Amino acid sequence: MKAFMEPEGVALIGISRKTGPGSFNLMENMIRFGFQGRIYPVNPNMSEILGRKAYPTIREIKEPVDLAVISTPRETTLGILSDCVAAGVRAAIVVNQGFADADDVGRALQKEMTAIAKRDGMRILGPNTLGVINNYTGFTTSFMPITKEEVPIGLICQSGIFFVGAREFSRNIGKGIDIGNGCDIGFYEALKYLGEDPQIRIVAIHMEGLNQGRKFLRLAERIVEEKPVVIHKTGSSERGAAAAVSHSGSMAGNYQVTRAALKQAGVIVLNEDGQMAHAVKTLLHLPLMKGDRVAVITFSGAAGIMITDALDRYGLRLASLSPKTTETVSRLSPGWMPLGNPLDIWPAVMLNGPDKAYAMALRAVLKDPHVDGVICVAIGPKVPDYAFLDVSDALKEVTGELPDKPVTAWLYGPNPDDIGKRFESTGRVMVYPTLEAASWALSILRGRHKILMK
Amino acid sequence: MKAFMEPEGVALIGISRKTGPGSFNLMENMIRFGFQGRIYPVNPNMSEILGRKAYPTIREIKEPVDLAVISTPRETTLGILSDCVAAGVRAAIVVNQGFADADDVGRALQKEMTAIAKRDGMRILGPNTLGVINNYTGFTTSFMPITKEEVPIGLICQSGIFFVGAREFSRNIGKGIDIGNGCDIGFYEALKYLGEDPQIRIVAIHMEGLNQGRKFLRLAERIVEEKPVVIHKTGSSERGAAAAVSHSGSMAGNYQVTRAALKQAGVIVLNEDGQMAHAVKTLLHLPLMKGDRVAVITFSGAAGIMITDALDRYGLRLASLSPKTTETVSRLSPGWMPLGNPLDIWPAVMLNGPDKAYAMALRAVLKDPHVDGVICVAIGPKVPDYAFLDVSDALKEVTGELPDKPVTAWLYGPNPDDIGKRFESTGRVMVYPTLEAASWALSILRGRHKILMK
Repeated sequence: MKAFMEPEGVALIGISRKTGPGSFNLMENMIRFGFQGRIYPVNPNMSEILGRKAYPTIREIKEPVDLAVISTPRETTLGILSDCVAAGVRAAIVVNQGFADADDVGRALQKEMTAIAKRDGMRILGPNTLGVINNYTGFTTSFMPITKEEVPIGLICQSGIFFVGAREFSRNIGKGIDIGNGCDIGFYEALKYLGEDPQIRIVAIHMEGLNQGRKFLRLAERIVEEKPVVIHKTGSSERGAAAAVSHSGSMAGNYQVTRAALKQAGVIVLNEDGQMAHAVKTLLHLPLMKGDRVAVITFSGAAGIMITDALDRYGLRLASLSPKTTETVSRLSPGWMPLGNPLDIWPAVMLNGPDKAYAMALRAVLKDPHVDGVICVAIGPKVPDYAFLDVSDALKEVTGELPDKPVTAWLYGPNPDDIGKRFESTGRVMVYPTLEAASWALSILRGRHKILMK
Repeated sequence: MKAFMEPEGVALIGISRKTGPGSFNLMENMIRFGFQGRIYPVNPNMSEILGRKAYPTIREIKEPVDLAVISTPRETTLGILSDCVAAGVRAAIVVNQGFADADDVGRALQKEMTAIAKRDGMRILGPNTLGVINNYTGFTTSFMPITKEEVPIGLICQSGIFFVGAREFSRNIGKGIDIGNGCDIGFYEALKYLGEDPQIRIVAIHMEGLNQGRKFLRLAERIVEEKPVVIHKTGSSERGAAAAVSHSGSMAGNYQVTRAALKQAGVIVLNEDGQMAHAVKTLLHLPLMKGDRVAVITFSGAAGIMITDALDRYGLRLASLSPKTTETVSRLSPGWMPLGNPLDIWPAVMLNGPDKAYAMALRAVLKDPHVDGVICVAIGPKVPDYAFLDVSDALKEVTGELPDKPVTAWLYGPNPDDIGKRFESTGRVMVYPTLEAASWALSILRGRHKILMK
């Protein structure tokens, strides 16, 4: 995979003359992304493009080429791959669609492509792929514009949507591998590379079909002891599984069996498309949870009940707070207030102000030996008039003092987004759009701890 | 309920001298909210507050009072209620906590409150409530600041969180009733009022416990024939149900039984806290779905598969597109492209430009007699450079021509929020944060159509 992720010389075969937005010019995108290596455009009808000399064929390039990126009509692909083999190129990305994702002709072409890989020792990524992203070296083969950010997140997918829609799927991508139809390089090779890459702390995977199942599972079992692997396996429905065949030529396999096997291997398996971004930010920023006991600090009893329900669904439970914790909060609250967990601190807030009440309650539960993690419910008030209802300073102070237990949060009110950013800027409190997600996030931190303790 | 929602004279008992942010002064909030009726503050230690004459007791007010709003310590509440009865006031809101939500003393006090309501013919809302919001007359009893907007959404809840967090829960509230502990007025009375209110088109309910179950269900069965009723029933877990008792003194009842009975009555029952806002905007803006056949237009095959899975979970299915529809799109696509449903139009976009490809595909599926609803997947591009990837104009034009089938959407990429707003500003396409939610939204439009056809 090194030739794909950190090439020094790259030949681009099938580059168009058009540049600028709307041209989806892969070479222009690669340069803009900051690739510092040598680029060799190959096009028999041009002498130069974007200021670089163009070559009629790959054989004409006299300097070493680690990687060929091929975006030409499918009829030409096999011939070009043979040229690459002849020119001593050992790695190629086939960008085009029209293979196992298309029709019988395409399936036959892809079979031949696999044979070239096997026979000639060339590694092929794709076809039907945006290729790779490496934000650490500034290299990408994506023809779609993508955002740059050095984050220790490795992504493996079977669709360019996850390169372009990185924000929805995983916040962002440090390194990404789109295996596309997977004619040669598959999930196994990609996971091996990102799993063993010290710059990558989390591996996020979108999976339509899993080939080399056993081999992949054995590898995953080993990788999860080092870093979390999160998988969104699609194709749960019969029609969805059939659609996977036509999208990436993938056999979706039995969904429930694959899911169970992945879980068994210690992989975090998602239920729906919104969860990947939540999983990634949770694992990136919060400490693991050493037990299953959760304290809830809330401005609202109703929210406490919804969290209680969600914890039950995700195998966690409400902590039985120690008397010391309850006493601390009860000193701030009216005498009639029944204090348990969820800890409804609104009356304490009314009497003592939000900052003081929140800080004392949070400090007490984080110090409580019966508590393993905390969910905070608070208001996102309009500022500046109601800035005093923003408890982010209190959270920052207390989680700074006591950083060992995970704290998730949910905000309501007129301004949850801005105040949520303030919460997250502490680096120790992550905010989620629903109580459900704030509860689920703790459960994956619990799961990770169990795996590491095995 | 009229005295609560549209009073002309209101006595406010237990108003503090403090004003401004942080004082949570109910009277100040009421005036700021725009209430045009008569307000009578009652406080024996003041002669005036906020420019209005204060009265030592309610008996001193010589003009008619429709509604008393009581926010005093619990020890004084029963005496004040008796004063109100003596002064001929027939409706009261008890704001304070400390009753069935608190301890044995509180429970006894609340029982006595119920007795006063029964014996003296006074209607009581609460205790433990923010009271009401009526955006149509500019009246509220909430001591928390809330946003003003005239929307035909009626909310019934058991917690102030839904007044303050209206955005998270239901976008906004036209009229709201917080029944709190429900000592007298409960879900039945509130649903009867909002259900029969011609200004309200959707009733959204947060429910911890349901008293008068049979009566409520019979009423709901009748109301859902006129307008949708959406309920988030909490207390699914044993601990959550126990917490409901301590939060609002509610008996959560058997969760599964209540849920099944509500569904049987035609109510839309939610699974988690994020869904209410989605349900409300869907029902407010989109037409009902006359069958279960969905067409998916997508820039990404992977997204199509995830939608296919979600449709299966929500009892919908992929439409078998008519040959005419497929032909229309295939004229825009490369020859090898297998075109089915999901309709992957990315190759067509590359050849024809996003606007043209999207408009032709959407027009074709909306005209297709085998299609009942549509899910659109598109990119939220950076503007102005990539503005040509924004297909909102195409969506506006086509849904304007063909407005009879519901269209939901999901966006990915660097700028989904801004482009999402452009989609929604068409008034005919609603955007959701996940593919799951965009699929679920169609299923509730399908459910509504079935109920109206019964």
